Amino acid sequence: MNQAVPPTVTKLIDAFSRLPGVGPKTASRLTYFLLRAPDELSASLAAALTDLKTKTIYCSLCMNITEQDPCPICSDSKRDHSIIAVVEEPLDVVAIERIGTFKGLYHVLHGAISPVDGIGPDDLRIRELVQRLKDSDVLEIIIATNPNMQGEATAMFIKQQIAKLGVKTTRLARGLPSGGDLEYVDSVTLLRALEGRDEM
Amino acid sequence: MNQAVPPTVTKLIDAFSRLPGVGPKTASRLTYFLLRAPDELSASLAAALTDLKTKTIYCSLCMNITEQDPCPICSDSKRDHSIIAVVEEPLDVVAIERIGTFKGLYHVLHGAISPVDGIGPDDLRIRELVQRLKDSDVLEIIIATNPNMQGEATAMFIKQQIAKLGVKTTRLARGLPSGGDLEYVDSVTLLRALEGRDEM
Repeated sequence: MNQAVPPTVTKLIDAFSRLPGVGPKTASRLTYFLLRAPDELSASLAAALTDLKTKTIYCSLCMNITEQDPCPICSDSKRDHSIIAVVEEPLDVVAIERIGTFKGLYHVLHGAISPVDGIGPDDLRIRELVQRLKDSDVLEIIIATNPNMQGEATAMFIKQQIAKLGVKTTRLARGLPSGGDLEYVDSVTLLRALEGRDEM
Repeated sequence: MNQAVPPTVTKLIDAFSRLPGVGPKTASRLTYFLLRAPDELSASLAAALTDLKTKTIYCSLCMNITEQDPCPICSDSKRDHSIIAVVEEPLDVVAIERIGTFKGLYHVLHGAISPVDGIGPDDLRIRELVQRLKDSDVLEIIIATNPNMQGEATAMFIKQQIAKLGVKTTRLARGLPSGGDLEYVDSVTLLRALEGRDEM
């Protein structure tokens, strides 16, 4: 096999294989696709990869990834600076922004508490959140961590940490997903939906 | 959504999205993974992408992708230079090399005849193959194009082109795939297996 694959090709296959969800087969398919594709395609990918790490920083307020500090969201005077949604990852900000109705600010933790993976509160941007709440006039914190064990643990920890600050703390509603089918919903979700039932 | 995603991040998501089989969701997952990953990962991917196009050339004999001309396979004196397997793509060379038993040389066509896609014989490296057969003492050509319409058309065309050269021309066997189940085999494959039945 070595004779058939030049080292540069092997090197790119190996580099692609290190990405999540990309196995050796996909990696070599991508590599041979790029070999046939116009030079511009691999050049623009290489340039974007280089820029990614050199041009991006963390916003000093919300810890989201940005090219300017504070980030466009934190420096937008038209947004509501008295409400902060606390999320685990930058992609969660993207997901909430996609709805288009939330006009507050964010705080990105960059992970969730997970003892199994050796991730404790100090590995997250929780200290920065507490400091931010002390420094500004925030009225409500929406904890929007993931609806799983790690997300719950993180939510509980944050609630304890900010309890004495007197900031209203809410949590995203749990229940049946829209468009779902009751028959196929897992029992934990169903239990939450039952417990959190609303009066009609 | 624009406020939440810096331009450099969008640029990399767009670049990833142009790869085959990579949708916008996968592209943003890869991008945000790289943002969290060590710098070395995106740097090595960028370097490999740049090298891919600057360091690789086509072997002047077999047209495979290589870093040296002739390629390691064509310049290997221990291989049998009297037999050539004709394949569509460089990845097909990798597949045959993986078996480990074929010790001949290759010829990479870089595609197959496909009128629907506007690919004719002149777009492939068929002329180079004919010239190569005239220039050297090749005894057998194994046509190893894909077992589909385009591959068949290409095989037929090549057979016609080299008919007058008096080189023995063979084709990879068609039949049941190993490990398959007769019940689930498509009828074209079953027909070929029946027609090509071997005496036990």
